[in-house]
Amino acid sequence: MRAYDIIQKKRDGKELTKEEIDFFVGGYMRDEIKDYQAAAFCMAVYFRGMTPEETASFTFAIRDSGERADFSQISGIRADKHSTGGVGDKTSLVVAPIVASCGVKVAKISGRGLGHTGGTIDKLESIGGFRTDLDEKTFIDVVNDCGMAIIGQNAVFAPADKKFYALRDVTATVDSIPLIASSIMGKKLASDDDCIVLDVKTGSGAFMKTQEKSEELARVMTDIGKRAGKKICALVTDMDEPLGYAVGNALEVKEAVETLQGKGERRFTALCIALATKMLFLAGKGSEKECERLVFSKIIDGSALKTLARFVRAQGGDEEVVFTPEKIAFSPEKADVLAEKDGFIVQTSAEEYGKAALLLGAGRNTMEDKIDFGAGILIKKKVGDRVKKGDVIATLYSSKNDFETAQEIISSATKIGDERPKERPIVLKTIE
Amino acid sequence: MRAYDIIQKKRDGKELTKEEIDFFVGGYMRDEIKDYQAAAFCMAVYFRGMTPEETASFTFAIRDSGERADFSQISGIRADKHSTGGVGDKTSLVVAPIVASCGVKVAKISGRGLGHTGGTIDKLESIGGFRTDLDEKTFIDVVNDCGMAIIGQNAVFAPADKKFYALRDVTATVDSIPLIASSIMGKKLASDDDCIVLDVKTGSGAFMKTQEKSEELARVMTDIGKRAGKKICALVTDMDEPLGYAVGNALEVKEAVETLQGKGERRFTALCIALATKMLFLAGKGSEKECERLVFSKIIDGSALKTLARFVRAQGGDEEVVFTPEKIAFSPEKADVLAEKDGFIVQTSAEEYGKAALLLGAGRNTMEDKIDFGAGILIKKKVGDRVKKGDVIATLYSSKNDFETAQEIISSATKIGDERPKERPIVLKTIE
Repeated sequence: MRAYDIIQKKRDGKELTKEEIDFFVGGYMRDEIKDYQAAAFCMAVYFRGMTPEETASFTFAIRDSGERADFSQISGIRADKHSTGGVGDKTSLVVAPIVASCGVKVAKISGRGLGHTGGTIDKLESIGGFRTDLDEKTFIDVVNDCGMAIIGQNAVFAPADKKFYALRDVTATVDSIPLIASSIMGKKLASDDDCIVLDVKTGSGAFMKTQEKSEELARVMTDIGKRAGKKICALVTDMDEPLGYAVGNALEVKEAVETLQGKGERRFTALCIALATKMLFLAGKGSEKECERLVFSKIIDGSALKTLARFVRAQGGDEEVVFTPEKIAFSPEKADVLAEKDGFIVQTSAEEYGKAALLLGAGRNTMEDKIDFGAGILIKKKVGDRVKKGDVIATLYSSKNDFETAQEIISSATKIGDERPKERPIVLKTIE
Repeated sequence: MRAYDIIQKKRDGKELTKEEIDFFVGGYMRDEIKDYQAAAFCMAVYFRGMTPEETASFTFAIRDSGERADFSQISGIRADKHSTGGVGDKTSLVVAPIVASCGVKVAKISGRGLGHTGGTIDKLESIGGFRTDLDEKTFIDVVNDCGMAIIGQNAVFAPADKKFYALRDVTATVDSIPLIASSIMGKKLASDDDCIVLDVKTGSGAFMKTQEKSEELARVMTDIGKRAGKKICALVTDMDEPLGYAVGNALEVKEAVETLQGKGERRFTALCIALATKMLFLAGKGSEKECERLVFSKIIDGSALKTLARFVRAQGGDEEVVFTPEKIAFSPEKADVLAEKDGFIVQTSAEEYGKAALLLGAGRNTMEDKIDFGAGILIKKKVGDRVKKGDVIATLYSSKNDFETAQEIISSATKIGDERPKERPIVLKTIE
């Protein structure tokens, strides 16, 4: 087998075999296949796409390029959710405790990425004492004991993804559905879940800007999961607006707690319920209606909140934040953004809010950047809300006393119109 | 400007500016743009193509990446022909003396490539004493004195082409018309001709296997030449069958001489006349009819042959070969290939004949290989000829006493049928 022939075959639109894909990914990892050949290959995939079989083979080759988690010591069914990433996405902090409190295990290994705000790991680390570096045995013990645990990735999962992604990032070959799907799923499948619910974001704050592309990505990822023997489905969800009120790590922890207290923002709460319901349904906890009722009951009776507290304590964190979230501290400096006229909020750009949060210190530009956990944006007026000129539409928090640019960004990213816009559902499509 | 954006722009089918193309080629030559980015770029070009403007800009960037010839010291109009390469193609050895004897200068700088048989330079070096390494001044003196000279490339012409070609060769991006056209023309335009006639081969022994693709390549190259201010046209010519009777260096020199003596194979002679006529026409020597008559007259009165002899002597070669070609020595070992049945030769594969010639020692597999100048194939029966079982269809020459594989190749590459096939013209199309 030769790399050249594999590139040519893909270039000519023919279907690659599993053996050819394994040869290519393996050869690339051993540096026998060169960056320039992998770049030509990725560009050929950009134009020709991949069949479902090819995409699955490519994903499995990525998954198998490194270590794989073994959760066989966890008792019971394991379910996880995975989001393609958005602004203000603290969903895992709400959904995992709900699902765990329903008797389905959530053993979550979370990457630490770049972004407007931190990832789930960073959000948790904004809780005093919280440890995300548990060893595998402790991690499994916490899952068995609390029903859930969330740690950062310390094993080397899917190194081929890292290598391919770095190459795609400098050769204009990122934007290819089969390559995106195999990148996400290659890492995800290196974990060891029975059930996976994908939250595929769509809109300005998402990787995929159009619903059509997001649905296609959701379908491709769901197909890969099924071929890997997983129970899997995907929700395509709105990420045009930031999710909930809070954007920023400590701010989002507070909002997650409030949501589990039943006081969450309406659309964000709806998303959490939808995701948790799907996870329980895939885990065989009954019909969708029954699963949804179970979710409601665990919020109402406080057991989801208790699960969150128990999990925070088990991982060394200060459980006080769960019971008295008002004690969560934000960055000392703050500034408001005011409505420039009367009317209704008709549009907010999640992408621009994300940029502002990054400027305030809530996220990372490079892996070396240190996150300001207390920094971020607390949104006061969401799409559909009525505002009067001078009303506070958002409060910005930061350790730096430098709000001007962020204020300008938020201000111009918030469109005020004369008529209340039609409400957009948060879950736009379900891909089974 | 960033390489990434240029790749992305090409990927998305937008037209690159001259500045962007210059930036990319220049950056790649300085290693600021990496192989993997150039590979992704070439694959994007493979899929998206290039507009005529882009192709010309890319060609000029390649041309300008190295030195350029300066023939201003040559008196009179300079014309050259350039073939895309075939099997048994000794056309330059016939056409250049004809054109030179008509008063149009031929200052030919020839590359030394890989191939089934050597290039023009190798063919000339099979003449005892012939030197192809003249310095520039001597070269110009020979052209002014004899009307023609042919040397190997010692200046570094179009180094960008070498770099891009090596990359394309391992990334399955060779087969792209704009990249092929800019590769050929980038080198060709580094020379300093007024008129260029392109001989674009088509068929099994050619780089382009279909007439459609060959015509497209011819059109693109002609367009580039015009944009560079050249008088240029292209003939698309048949390379399904080997050209003439001889395949191999000394064998081809002998056939070239015989052709100038008026004893050449019919279709090969027709090609030489057509090319020479076009060169003279572009050089302003009269109407096409007048130019053709001029060509005939210079063959008939022996002045083309005399020009060849004079040129061979001027470059240190033994002019005896021109006047007594029967003295040209071939490799000592020989073997015949016999017709397997009665009938007519209906098809011969130039490609397969080329492979056999390479096996016999007439060509190079790597640049280090030494050519056996006397090796090759003397074809006895061409397409359309009647054969009886046992007739010699070709005689093979080699220094190695090992003919079996070559015999088998020739035998199975020569199809014998019951009916005489319709004659195919040698010049299939003219692109002005």
